[in-house]
Amino acid sequence: MPRRSMILLAFFYNPQGDHRLSWRHPRAPGREVFDLSYYRGLAEAAERAKLDAIFIADHLGIWDTYRSGVAHYANARLEPLTLVSALAAVTRHIGFMATASTSYNEPFNLARMFASIDHLSGGRVGWNVVTSALEEEARNFGRDANIEHARRYERAGEFLDVAKALWDSWEDEALLIDKGSGFFADPERVHYLDHAGPQFRVRGPLNVPRPPQGHPLIVQAGSSEAGRELAAAHAEVHFAVIRSEAEGLAYRADMDARLTRKGRKPESFKLIPGVLPIVAASRAEALEKQEALEALMLDRVAIDLLSSWAGVDLSAYPPDGPIPDLPNEGTFDGWRTWLKLVKDETNKGLSIRQLARKIANTGSVPLLAGTASDIADQLEAWFVSGAADGYNLMFPLLPEDWTNFMQTVVPELQRRGLHRTDYEPGTLRDRLGLQRPENGFAAARPGG
Amino acid sequence: MPRRSMILLAFFYNPQGDHRLSWRHPRAPGREVFDLSYYRGLAEAAERAKLDAIFIADHLGIWDTYRSGVAHYANARLEPLTLVSALAAVTRHIGFMATASTSYNEPFNLARMFASIDHLSGGRVGWNVVTSALEEEARNFGRDANIEHARRYERAGEFLDVAKALWDSWEDEALLIDKGSGFFADPERVHYLDHAGPQFRVRGPLNVPRPPQGHPLIVQAGSSEAGRELAAAHAEVHFAVIRSEAEGLAYRADMDARLTRKGRKPESFKLIPGVLPIVAASRAEALEKQEALEALMLDRVAIDLLSSWAGVDLSAYPPDGPIPDLPNEGTFDGWRTWLKLVKDETNKGLSIRQLARKIANTGSVPLLAGTASDIADQLEAWFVSGAADGYNLMFPLLPEDWTNFMQTVVPELQRRGLHRTDYEPGTLRDRLGLQRPENGFAAARPGG
Repeated sequence: MPRRSMILLAFFYNPQGDHRLSWRHPRAPGREVFDLSYYRGLAEAAERAKLDAIFIADHLGIWDTYRSGVAHYANARLEPLTLVSALAAVTRHIGFMATASTSYNEPFNLARMFASIDHLSGGRVGWNVVTSALEEEARNFGRDANIEHARRYERAGEFLDVAKALWDSWEDEALLIDKGSGFFADPERVHYLDHAGPQFRVRGPLNVPRPPQGHPLIVQAGSSEAGRELAAAHAEVHFAVIRSEAEGLAYRADMDARLTRKGRKPESFKLIPGVLPIVAASRAEALEKQEALEALMLDRVAIDLLSSWAGVDLSAYPPDGPIPDLPNEGTFDGWRTWLKLVKDETNKGLSIRQLARKIANTGSVPLLAGTASDIADQLEAWFVSGAADGYNLMFPLLPEDWTNFMQTVVPELQRRGLHRTDYEPGTLRDRLGLQRPENGFAAARPGG
Repeated sequence: MPRRSMILLAFFYNPQGDHRLSWRHPRAPGREVFDLSYYRGLAEAAERAKLDAIFIADHLGIWDTYRSGVAHYANARLEPLTLVSALAAVTRHIGFMATASTSYNEPFNLARMFASIDHLSGGRVGWNVVTSALEEEARNFGRDANIEHARRYERAGEFLDVAKALWDSWEDEALLIDKGSGFFADPERVHYLDHAGPQFRVRGPLNVPRPPQGHPLIVQAGSSEAGRELAAAHAEVHFAVIRSEAEGLAYRADMDARLTRKGRKPESFKLIPGVLPIVAASRAEALEKQEALEALMLDRVAIDLLSSWAGVDLSAYPPDGPIPDLPNEGTFDGWRTWLKLVKDETNKGLSIRQLARKIANTGSVPLLAGTASDIADQLEAWFVSGAADGYNLMFPLLPEDWTNFMQTVVPELQRRGLHRTDYEPGTLRDRLGLQRPENGFAAARPGG
């Protein structure tokens, strides 16, 4: 059954794994998470399995809203762009999606770094665009509190417009390097932006030629109304929290309508739900692994995490009592996607401690625990139905869940014709079936 | 004659070489300057020669003040931090000094990137701190004109104070990673800055552990009064324009006095003049190479470059006429170091064209053209007299002058006992004889 390969992204935020306290696991890495060789091992395993890309999440601060963070949470991590540059140098095919904030960067700097990595990697980089919703982040950048939600998204939209114009500011044919005549560039194909918007004024041009992919891939998560609108305008890969096939189909229908309104084709947008895969030789063993991870959770960390997401300090309430009223999503300046997930669970009769441990342990995305065949079945189902174009694989424990998946689930998906057995030539964009963007300046130029 | 190795840095701004139009040379690289493999080749050659570090200069924009820039100048280049991350991944010993601006970045982001590269490279990175003096740069960051000179330097000083405090915000012993107790970090050894200064408000801590070098090496150029004061406060490696041994000795005496006033020891500061080495089999051949490069210069580019440095549009004056009056250095918001160099030449009776070609062709630093032995003699003389702790090697044509130097001059310096024959263990800082900085927070903590 030949069909297009499902998109497989290997995700991490905590380099010890996506379970919030996976760092405590006996087989979790220690200080080596600050060495390149650790990530090189992960990248090589994923590249052997022909994965599409490695997805690196990020925050611009430590998580410590409710105090237990500093002591108990694995807050220290490397910066994604520098890490991805290093990994690009020691891999040949696999792509990278690196998180960077539109709220606390300048468009010229970030557009330039992504353009440079795209050149250095031969067209293998994507930018996971985030707006930075944590108070802890705001306070590292001259602010007392978060930027208001709507303004963050307005800034993100303008930031992306500017970044794309900077990438286009050198047309593909702009570089002449004509040694005889002395023309390094064709000045008619190098463009000034002279952008003057509500958030940014940027003259341009960029001082890097147009990236191999035209634009590095635009990746985005965040399912709030503003998040979906930003996705419809800009995202090519959209990382979503989807908990059932029906939800995935509804999500896609909603996004297709938004894309159409923006004049985009549905195939220019890849819907990528997150999943937490735990692979084992048997279902019983997978369950044991899951329970062993859950036992690592500390009540205090769980309640403090829930407090962060809910926007209310729950440590002031009895841990075995009910969840108090939570903020209104529509006026919340924190992370609306997380608040909604918490609120969806509050009418199930769980105590604060129970809900905290549940959410802190499993996160928000479906846990897939079972044999390689079980997991392949589940990945296949949503892909075939159209509820997903692929998956962001949020392994609970690194490196073992990552390498297990590469060695057991990927071969099963390959046998089923659901995943490539070798890398196709071309850029990350080519492999994902996403077109190279037209150059806005070239299109507007007389004769362009 | 055993003595400490002279510090050798291999410099580039234009990846085709430091001669301003070296890109036109028949043996200059073409589009490969946007591929990693080109830089990897340079880095490997320098590492085989046991050089201390590669020094990458940068601007945050293209140079086009006077129009000829876009067409004739090799304005496109990769971004240094991403390039250095990639090169760190494919080298083992050599250091990297990457340029980044304190005027157009946020301290949290830049401190984090340098900390990450220092971890990824095992302690091999330095930060060349610049304040960005070009109008072209200002206009990519929301401004109509340069930030005023004194304010740029005030911002740089505060930026460095914040960056250092962020690097110190995790004490060396802060990471516990105690899986049993659940203590990832010792909260008494993780510090908040709560910095609130005229330019920045930053809470901290950083979300990266203290770098292997404690602080990435602080490198700085710029010989204006404000530049020297910033150097005396912060720089460990200082890249200077020095045109004679006497000037070097005077420069060092001036800096020693400034260091002493700041409570620093002279040995904590390495004085590194720039030189332009052209190595050949004979002096005549070296001269021929120099003349061949100079023939590549275009009058229009030369006059426009001189105009940029002088702060006056000289294309409005007859090219064979005299130099008009130039701005006052003390009130100039552009690059004072360059303006001074131009003014030092204006009383020599040269026409605009002659001075433009002279300065555009040779830059500002001494040209060393000759055999390997000639060049080693010159490098030895300033090193032995104390006029230099080493050199920033600004090769006119890449890659050939770079590889020639590594293959001919370095062995000669090694024979003379002036350069290491193998890398010593340790970090870049260790190899340069610079101490690992004390942690400001640990020193201030009771019992610290």
